[in-house]
Amino acid sequence: MTESTYPVIEGAVCPLPLSHDQTIVMGHGAGGKMSQELIRDLFQSRLMNPILAENNDFGRLSIPTNQPGHLAVSTDMHMVTPLFFPGGDIGSLAICGTVNDIAMSGGIPLAITASFILEEGLAINTLAAIVDSMAETARQVGIPIIAGDTKVAEKGNADKIFINTTGIAWVPDSRRIGGQYAHPGDIILLSGTMGDHGIAVLAARGELGFQADVQSDIAPLHGLIGTVLQAAPHTHVLRDPTRGGVGTTLNEIARQSRTSLWIEESLLPVHPTVQAACEMLGFDPLYIANEGKLIVICPPEEAEQALTAMRQHAYGKQAVVIGEVKAEDPGRVLMRTSYGATRLVDTLAGEILPRIC
Amino acid sequence: MTESTYPVIEGAVCPLPLSHDQTIVMGHGAGGKMSQELIRDLFQSRLMNPILAENNDFGRLSIPTNQPGHLAVSTDMHMVTPLFFPGGDIGSLAICGTVNDIAMSGGIPLAITASFILEEGLAINTLAAIVDSMAETARQVGIPIIAGDTKVAEKGNADKIFINTTGIAWVPDSRRIGGQYAHPGDIILLSGTMGDHGIAVLAARGELGFQADVQSDIAPLHGLIGTVLQAAPHTHVLRDPTRGGVGTTLNEIARQSRTSLWIEESLLPVHPTVQAACEMLGFDPLYIANEGKLIVICPPEEAEQALTAMRQHAYGKQAVVIGEVKAEDPGRVLMRTSYGATRLVDTLAGEILPRIC
Repeated sequence: MTESTYPVIEGAVCPLPLSHDQTIVMGHGAGGKMSQELIRDLFQSRLMNPILAENNDFGRLSIPTNQPGHLAVSTDMHMVTPLFFPGGDIGSLAICGTVNDIAMSGGIPLAITASFILEEGLAINTLAAIVDSMAETARQVGIPIIAGDTKVAEKGNADKIFINTTGIAWVPDSRRIGGQYAHPGDIILLSGTMGDHGIAVLAARGELGFQADVQSDIAPLHGLIGTVLQAAPHTHVLRDPTRGGVGTTLNEIARQSRTSLWIEESLLPVHPTVQAACEMLGFDPLYIANEGKLIVICPPEEAEQALTAMRQHAYGKQAVVIGEVKAEDPGRVLMRTSYGATRLVDTLAGEILPRIC
Repeated sequence: MTESTYPVIEGAVCPLPLSHDQTIVMGHGAGGKMSQELIRDLFQSRLMNPILAENNDFGRLSIPTNQPGHLAVSTDMHMVTPLFFPGGDIGSLAICGTVNDIAMSGGIPLAITASFILEEGLAINTLAAIVDSMAETARQVGIPIIAGDTKVAEKGNADKIFINTTGIAWVPDSRRIGGQYAHPGDIILLSGTMGDHGIAVLAARGELGFQADVQSDIAPLHGLIGTVLQAAPHTHVLRDPTRGGVGTTLNEIARQSRTSLWIEESLLPVHPTVQAACEMLGFDPLYIANEGKLIVICPPEEAEQALTAMRQHAYGKQAVVIGEVKAEDPGRVLMRTSYGATRLVDTLAGEILPRIC
């Protein structure tokens, strides 16, 4: 590790304003003038809100209700490669990924923090485009970015940019939603096609060997969830099948709730291009990541309303029922295949697609 | 970027439990069985609490009061090198760094999240030691780690381990503490010696050229702050001088509050070894990072009590008054030197010590 250790020059001339043909240097992470300049010219100009404007070590966040309730908090590191891909980029991913995790509580997203590791040599232009995308996505969601941090790693000690986001939602105490609440008899719904995000990222890396017309499904899901909960207020589980895909997510729910989850292969929605890519590569779309899909598990008497409500929302037009919850064989996910056999759907063992989120 | 893209093997034998002579591989970040095993055997066994045990996408956090109040939220990336140094390690740093940022609101720390980027090839043993240190530090502070995330970067695309922590504190609405509240006439106190953390890390890198008997001052400061606020309830500013040191932190406060901050060089406490190291390297201790020091700015009528209270606390034994706030020359920090001259204390321009936090 080389260290540049030049002495502080008192009263040094303030560097010129940040120019977009510059690249990130170590000084941008040192907490001095260059850091302040990067924060002011690049981050604050795009993300500004009254909380950030206070410029303290912490962001002040009010809770907009006197109802009894609690917080739902989630954190995620994002290190997708490439940084930009059809349907999104690391910026929109970093906001949606965390918003979706907190939204799975059934609560109202309140705020998000953003923390960056920048590799020395990253183009300021690239960073600006990513922060623009974060700002735009946060605006769509309707939440402020209330705290941030930037560190710089020497060239070769990071890969361009890594982003952590941590989100906070407010959940009325009356809501009881979580993987542990799946109940025998419940119906399992899925908001749309599986694996679009994973295959879109793979295609953007040029690893498919053919031109694939598939876009990442990145989307903030709190709006779709609001619609579902209005139609099916007794919903037991909300979960977004990201890393590990629908197969791994259903296994988590089966273990948490000590039930078995039964799905029908013929009901599982897959985009034809994703299906073709998976067949070629030997992947199973059940294990390919999504970033804008929702699994809903609700009592049978509310399933029809939930499905109708989902289909009326932009992010749930292709929603389908994919199966049901049973008491027998707790902890397992079982699939009736198109040939009428029953197959165990196991958790993904190792990795199939690294660096996709 | 090389991608290992082997197909999913249905019903594959579950890998053996995590062994401590293993290293991190890409599969530990893929969201499947290996990820779950790492989370269960390494993280959950050390960090477990009822909130993590729910195993949802989000951590549920109750607010333990019905008083009117708000949240203080802060986020920090940590990428110190080396990972272990006299007085601490990246684990204790990641907890204290964020706890201190939220504690500067004057609020009560409630919870923290932890998010990891692991480099392929990192020894499991090293990771276990770091997570042990995080668990121990969080226990000292008395807060749970309520959410986490782990990603793995290919060898050469990260540097061993990067940790993000995001903290949440509860602040009664009656508290009004922040850099913007410094007021002419206020007294400036500092809890102890400057620059210990930065010089300890530098020494651990072997870059001092001599054996230095100096330890990082890493400490959680919420207890010291509680003591100060009891003694000096009208405190206006609390701030921990980390990256950029006391000099840069005072400049931030001067700008936020549109006052000038006047300090006396002869009053600034510096450990003799830190002083010697700084003289040799051409550094000014005013710009060297601390990780367990506190700046307090309070009305003159409460300064004496604040000082007495600080000195009675383990982390404030060497507390001193270092200066006062004035109305003239707003936005500037000025120092009366030991020779009787007045010197402008500017913000640090670029970097002097990268990768120290």
